[in-house]
Amino acid sequence: MSDHIVRAYDAELEGLGQKIAEMGGIAEKMLSDAMDALADFDTQLAHATIASDPRLDTLQREIEEQAILTIARRQPLAVDLREIIATIRISNDLERVGDLAKNIAKRAIKVAADVRIPRAIVGLKSMHDSAAILLKDVLDAYSQRDAARAREVWTYDADLDSLEDSVFRDLLTFMMEDPRNISFCAHLLFCSKNIERIGDHATNIAETVVYLVTGETMPADRPKGRSVLSELPTAAG
Amino acid sequence: MSDHIVRAYDAELEGLGQKIAEMGGIAEKMLSDAMDALADFDTQLAHATIASDPRLDTLQREIEEQAILTIARRQPLAVDLREIIATIRISNDLERVGDLAKNIAKRAIKVAADVRIPRAIVGLKSMHDSAAILLKDVLDAYSQRDAARAREVWTYDADLDSLEDSVFRDLLTFMMEDPRNISFCAHLLFCSKNIERIGDHATNIAETVVYLVTGETMPADRPKGRSVLSELPTAAG
Repeated sequence: MSDHIVRAYDAELEGLGQKIAEMGGIAEKMLSDAMDALADFDTQLAHATIASDPRLDTLQREIEEQAILTIARRQPLAVDLREIIATIRISNDLERVGDLAKNIAKRAIKVAADVRIPRAIVGLKSMHDSAAILLKDVLDAYSQRDAARAREVWTYDADLDSLEDSVFRDLLTFMMEDPRNISFCAHLLFCSKNIERIGDHATNIAETVVYLVTGETMPADRPKGRSVLSELPTAAG
Repeated sequence: MSDHIVRAYDAELEGLGQKIAEMGGIAEKMLSDAMDALADFDTQLAHATIASDPRLDTLQREIEEQAILTIARRQPLAVDLREIIATIRISNDLERVGDLAKNIAKRAIKVAADVRIPRAIVGLKSMHDSAAILLKDVLDAYSQRDAARAREVWTYDADLDSLEDSVFRDLLTFMMEDPRNISFCAHLLFCSKNIERIGDHATNIAETVVYLVTGETMPADRPKGRSVLSELPTAAG
């Protein structure tokens, strides 16, 4: 490729990376704001969180479109193609994290309308602390192209799942103690599921980072240890 | 392009379409089996449903990889590029439908361990009937490249959402009537949410079909009425 084309191409990759960073920042803030809104019964913050979501959707579509245009125009080498595919996958996961944070914010509004037992939210806060760390770690692993750090995220997600089991049992207990708690706690049940799923998306991103750095696909249950994409054209067009 | 290359390219597009059809068939069957497992307390069927999910995951990854290889190798025209992007998006949504059906099957196993009020499942069946029709219609709209039919799916999804509201209220009522119903109904709450989200994915697929056929992006809240992808290179490499 000529110098001019290489520079244009590098600029495209860099633009994609910047958009992922912007998405990561928005998703982290949405999660943290949604949880504050829930814990403080702050409906104004909940509405502000919901209002952030369209920006995340727009960025995700822009990343997908620009990534695919870059592939079509540049016919990148295998390693660069992995880079571009990673941005598509990660932007999908971050868009879903934003959706889930938005769902928590919506529940925060419902919960604030009939506050019953604020202590029921304590377990959710622990879940949130874990999920926020997972998300931060995996975004750092992506920006540093650090497969080892990404693999740690993969293992920590199991802790979040067991935390969710315990929150589920606690919420059911609160419901059984007093039927007036039922509606309040039902909304919290959905919030805890949303947080657990944010952990799943952090794990997906971890998988993508490992794929990006090593070319390997991670889940043990997948039939192939290597991606078909390792069979790519080895010279740029 | 030479005849030989055109034929190879057509075969690649056809292969992608066949895999989407296979995914659609599996996702529909998983949803219907998961609901039967739930309604009949049939844990064997629930386990069989869960066992179908890895095939869907594998197909989704294969479609994504083959689609991107095709883009990198062939530098397709705008209309063909839309075709390929549509397969990536639809395979993502169908993989998520399978995940959600798997979640229902997992809940079916928990619910069967302590059956309380089978009539609580009636509302979920109505939701399932709607979701199954949405899914069937949107898969037909895709295979026939029928944007008008896809747009109908878009509007029907609102019915499913209001059905979920009513199921939510009914389940809360059953919980309040007898605390021994709480655990049983909590699992059903999650099932109803899973079905509602399957409707959302059907709606996403409808949006993709409209984009595929017309080049337009659908959601009213998106800033641009046209995709960046309409600015594609107009000649194949």
